[in-house]
Amino acid sequence: MNSIGRLFRLTTFGESHGVAIGGVIDGMPAGIDIDSAAIQKALDRRRPGQSKQTSQRRESDLFECLSGLYEGRTTGAPIGFLIRNEDQRPSDYDVLKDVYRPGHADFTYQQKYGHRDHRGGGRSSARETATRVVAGAFAAQFLSRYGISVHAGLVQMGDMHIQGRVWADVDRSPFFCPDLTAVPTLTQMIDDLRRERDSIGGVVEVVVHGLPAGLGEPVYGKLSTALTAGWMSINAVKGVEIGDGFSSAAQRGSVHRDVMTPSGFESNHAGGILGGISTGQEVFGRVAFKPPSSIPQPVQSLNFSGEAQSVTVTGRHDPCVAIRGVPVVEAMTWLALMDAWAIRFGQVTAPECYSQ
Amino acid sequence: MNSIGRLFRLTTFGESHGVAIGGVIDGMPAGIDIDSAAIQKALDRRRPGQSKQTSQRRESDLFECLSGLYEGRTTGAPIGFLIRNEDQRPSDYDVLKDVYRPGHADFTYQQKYGHRDHRGGGRSSARETATRVVAGAFAAQFLSRYGISVHAGLVQMGDMHIQGRVWADVDRSPFFCPDLTAVPTLTQMIDDLRRERDSIGGVVEVVVHGLPAGLGEPVYGKLSTALTAGWMSINAVKGVEIGDGFSSAAQRGSVHRDVMTPSGFESNHAGGILGGISTGQEVFGRVAFKPPSSIPQPVQSLNFSGEAQSVTVTGRHDPCVAIRGVPVVEAMTWLALMDAWAIRFGQVTAPECYSQ
Amino acid sequence: MNSIGRLFRLTTFGESHGVAIGGVIDGMPAGIDIDSAAIQKALDRRRPGQSKQTSQRRESDLFECLSGLYEGRTTGAPIGFLIRNEDQRPSDYDVLKDVYRPGHADFTYQQKYGHRDHRGGGRSSARETATRVVAGAFAAQFLSRYGISVHAGLVQMGDMHIQGRVWADVDRSPFFCPDLTAVPTLTQMIDDLRRERDSIGGVVEVVVHGLPAGLGEPVYGKLSTALTAGWMSINAVKGVEIGDGFSSAAQRGSVHRDVMTPSGFESNHAGGILGGISTGQEVFGRVAFKPPSSIPQPVQSLNFSGEAQSVTVTGRHDPCVAIRGVPVVEAMTWLALMDAWAIRFGQVTAPECYSQ
Amino acid sequence: MNSIGRLFRLTTFGESHGVAIGGVIDGMPAGIDIDSAAIQKALDRRRPGQSKQTSQRRESDLFECLSGLYEGRTTGAPIGFLIRNEDQRPSDYDVLKDVYRPGHADFTYQQKYGHRDHRGGGRSSARETATRVVAGAFAAQFLSRYGISVHAGLVQMGDMHIQGRVWADVDRSPFFCPDLTAVPTLTQMIDDLRRERDSIGGVVEVVVHGLPAGLGEPVYGKLSTALTAGWMSINAVKGVEIGDGFSSAAQRGSVHRDVMTPSGFESNHAGGILGGISTGQEVFGRVAFKPPSSIPQPVQSLNFSGEAQSVTVTGRHDPCVAIRGVPVVEAMTWLALMDAWAIRFGQVTAPECYSQ
Repeated sequence: MNSIGRLFRLTTFGESHGVAIGGVIDGMPAGIDIDSAAIQKALDRRRPGQSKQTSQRRESDLFECLSGLYEGRTTGAPIGFLIRNEDQRPSDYDVLKDVYRPGHADFTYQQKYGHRDHRGGGRSSARETATRVVAGAFAAQFLSRYGISVHAGLVQMGDMHIQGRVWADVDRSPFFCPDLTAVPTLTQMIDDLRRERDSIGGVVEVVVHGLPAGLGEPVYGKLSTALTAGWMSINAVKGVEIGDGFSSAAQRGSVHRDVMTPSGFESNHAGGILGGISTGQEVFGRVAFKPPSSIPQPVQSLNFSGEAQSVTVTGRHDPCVAIRGVPVVEAMTWLALMDAWAIRFGQVTAPECYSQ
Repeated sequence: MNSIGRLFRLTTFGESHGVAIGGVIDGMPAGIDIDSAAIQKALDRRRPGQSKQTSQRRESDLFECLSGLYEGRTTGAPIGFLIRNEDQRPSDYDVLKDVYRPGHADFTYQQKYGHRDHRGGGRSSARETATRVVAGAFAAQFLSRYGISVHAGLVQMGDMHIQGRVWADVDRSPFFCPDLTAVPTLTQMIDDLRRERDSIGGVVEVVVHGLPAGLGEPVYGKLSTALTAGWMSINAVKGVEIGDGFSSAAQRGSVHRDVMTPSGFESNHAGGILGGISTGQEVFGRVAFKPPSSIPQPVQSLNFSGEAQSVTVTGRHDPCVAIRGVPVVEAMTWLALMDAWAIRFGQVTAPECYSQ
Repeated sequence: MNSIGRLFRLTTFGESHGVAIGGVIDGMPAGIDIDSAAIQKALDRRRPGQSKQTSQRRESDLFECLSGLYEGRTTGAPIGFLIRNEDQRPSDYDVLKDVYRPGHADFTYQQKYGHRDHRGGGRSSARETATRVVAGAFAAQFLSRYGISVHAGLVQMGDMHIQGRVWADVDRSPFFCPDLTAVPTLTQMIDDLRRERDSIGGVVEVVVHGLPAGLGEPVYGKLSTALTAGWMSINAVKGVEIGDGFSSAAQRGSVHRDVMTPSGFESNHAGGILGGISTGQEVFGRVAFKPPSSIPQPVQSLNFSGEAQSVTVTGRHDPCVAIRGVPVVEAMTWLALMDAWAIRFGQVTAPECYSQ
Repeated sequence: MNSIGRLFRLTTFGESHGVAIGGVIDGMPAGIDIDSAAIQKALDRRRPGQSKQTSQRRESDLFECLSGLYEGRTTGAPIGFLIRNEDQRPSDYDVLKDVYRPGHADFTYQQKYGHRDHRGGGRSSARETATRVVAGAFAAQFLSRYGISVHAGLVQMGDMHIQGRVWADVDRSPFFCPDLTAVPTLTQMIDDLRRERDSIGGVVEVVVHGLPAGLGEPVYGKLSTALTAGWMSINAVKGVEIGDGFSSAAQRGSVHRDVMTPSGFESNHAGGILGGISTGQEVFGRVAFKPPSSIPQPVQSLNFSGEAQSVTVTGRHDPCVAIRGVPVVEAMTWLALMDAWAIRFGQVTAPECYSQ
């Protein structure tokens, strides 16, 4: 249950305040030169403490590769890796030892396991997503050889809908938003939230360019299912959609069905997937993040004896997790694509085979 | 890729215009008395040809059980079953032999497999969902012994949002909607669509009552992921959400986080799942269906030689597949719950074990 | 648990005395012309009642394909199939309703499931293996296009070790043995066993020709593990080995290690697999079957109340199940090879890709 | 493909001469107090360099737990762990860079992956088995609470068959053999082999006490298949058997079928498993190891250009890997049992549930 993927498979471990988090990437094709700096750069994008818009926890998040590479190239063996936890401060959480934080997994883990690691959410912490970014970066290095790219960006924060889609600008803003004109408003919103000791939800959009037609399996192995299941597994995600998604409910068939012409599709309401299989168009979707429950406002809750107890979650938290969710959504997209690729093309890595 | 579930697992086969569709249910607990009439009744709900609101294809959809029951009781062996196709009329589809229907899987299947069964969509037809309903009905018979119930209903059609949530009324309307006051408007909408030779999308809401806390696995095996992946695998689904879903994006943490009191949660924005594990509250979500692409309006498309060709899809089609999607969403919900149950409680079926 | 394989996956259902047995083959490549007569012929080889050496139960074992073929060619959709049970005579088993047959799964099924289908062993009957033969025949039709062949034969019955390995003679003897000179002795042994109301064990050897190097995965996905696990899952099998197998225990490294020369390996103690991956040599192994427990001699046993009760198993049984195990061992070999092939080469079926 | 198990699942990584080997144990029940010293002790048993009978490579094999434990108790989260490689001496292998070692996976890895890590076999080295021992020790700590024990021992080396089965003596001999009277002969054999620069095969027997009836799944999920597949996945294993195994081939049904009486089974030819499900008797089997190919005798082989080249494998190797295979066979047995247990009993860990 701590693994995702069928032929390209990530297994992760580690708690937010343990020694380290890490994972095993199984199914990485052999013979690929890996740019380790690019892996680290991907991790750095997700890292907390980089701007005042996100958590002030300071982690250097150094990627340590333990296996699967020889002289910088993949061998086909599984890639084991670690990211050590540094800025742990578990004492921040001592006050939470016997109380459930509303909106967190504290209660459900206690119900399921009978006890739990209360420090920072333990296994339920979003810190686990760093391992996904590592695996996504490996998949990206393989698939980008075939002209595939993945871009995600924040397109909604609270009731602010971001209009632009200049993907190249995503890394130029502290909000990972594809529209630099939105930055002043977003900045003001975050400042207000910090002052009001509150948090906000958001939506991340993701788009895949260059994906060939024919990827994905029918029925229970659809590319759309694999993508959305990967996104849904991200902490704080409450909704996912492909193509026009929920908007499709208000559309008519005469509008939604994408007309085909000799020069290609005339539109892309489907989001590049029909019957679960890629059409060769852009694949896109959206991911809704709830507002973080860790806000420095006291709230009524329960202790382990079932008595009412007020709790105030201090610590260093993100006012909007959708922001740092952007690189994670990208990573989960790469994982789903890579797995679909492996099922379609197997382990044969010679480019000449991919023309079929 | 034609299987879903881990310990409670459905594998299906069959095309819309072949001899039969069917499936294998693996992991059904032993010793359960099965009410076969209830299985058939579940199938009948999904069956086309029952009202003028849905497809006029006439199928008796008779459930034939081939194994796994002995003297009416489950043995623990896999349940193989068939539903024969009767009203096939493959000649309806002869005109489609060499042309792609826009909005259908014709093009992608051709890209993936090199050829295809063009009759009614073959394997990509929604007819496959009848097998899901059978499996869901088996799961329902088991889980309802523990007080668990599942209700779904149409809550949006086009831009018409249905307000009421009287689940007991769902089976009293031809639209499977939980608000009988909406029926006249919905009827008018369908009449208009038929006259305009068009179709419309819709949203189905589903709610689970009686689920104990502690079901579901963290990280990649979340109950929320299992539920939404099951829904996402249904034909024509473009978006899924749990709890407040996409609305969460506009909420604040101070609102969204569900306060706990000694007498229970004060709200349920989370949809009964925290950290991927059930809280013991109602679990609910929504599923967005696109408008069907099969409408009797001519549309530009391509033939297999890549040349422009107009195509008109005749045949007997639903103007809004979300309606008949209701029992399918219920079924996929039962499947996900049953699988989570099996992982938590194993094969030990004695009620006394479930107090834990 | 009623499925085997990862990308090429067989799921089966059905009891020996139910309506039918059947299965679903998932992962069969698209576009392959299927010779249905060859599928039936494979089934006929395994069928009981063909000679006095095997069970006198008469089943026509007709293969009915329900899906996955269109105009005789695979579509990539799952292949659902049935074999109806005809000569059921469940009354043969009425006497067994409340008593455990020693050496059978009666007791363990009762322990596991609380009750059981006592007619002919229900799900634990070797009748299930007919579905494996069907799936194996599909795999064979695909892999034989690439020059791969599989041959099995009876090489030991009781203490009689069969010396010859003329695979072409296997189908010329009622014992499926690769040495026609052994037939008179084997016939005499079976005659003696019938007269003495007893049964005997046996060993089946299997050899694969034409398998390219590089198939199979390291560590937990070894080709040797996949092959032997498939064999081990056959009813009555108690031991399996690859290459020199148990004989290796008495060998020295200087003998066992197969020397490589520019013109190939000088020997094949390894059985064509090193580190779990095929070497390009012949792959071979052996499978040990226990003597059937169904013999018409009374034996002490227990009834369901735990009291001593004598039981005599009548009915129509094989004195040596290893004989009819031959086509089943072949089938399980094809399944393992096909799965390994799919993992290596994906769904790309063009021959030009396989040179890599 | 670097994972084993369904609900209790081990995923491993690491090469013999890389930074570290390690793994992730998924599905360990929550709330179990772990004796870390016992984990280390299990590792120490398998460790090389402990006696002159085994490899002189010196590794301290220190177990580092990175996650899944909190205050010494399992949390239900995955257990990530590392064992660092210390005594690497990769220069020992420089001479092997361009040549295939006969009897090793060098050639097949090269065929499969196009290149490889030649240092000590890389991923194909038996060093990976240390991670299995760790996982087995976790499973043992859980299952021993229910009175289950596993013992393995060397019962054959070359043509020397060891008669005694005093399991308590296994750890009193450097050969892990259950008969101390065999030690002088075995010592002489190893001395002779070292002098003759050769190696020898062996057989390990394993027995499980205290396993309740009803564990294991029918057909493709048999306990016998899970056990033997686990054993078969161990390096150098060429054959596996359950109960009387290959000897069954020479037995008659009247002998093999284990008679049941009110006071229990009268014999155990089946090895405690019928129809794939445990009977409640002792479960036992045997595992055949080939003689190691790494012997300090020159041998003809090939270099990467396909030319004949003599190679002499130096380094520190075991003359009989079956000896150190004993704790690995035990570990794989624990893994299979734990997985079967989880499927049967789920995650409910209260002892009162296990009476059923």
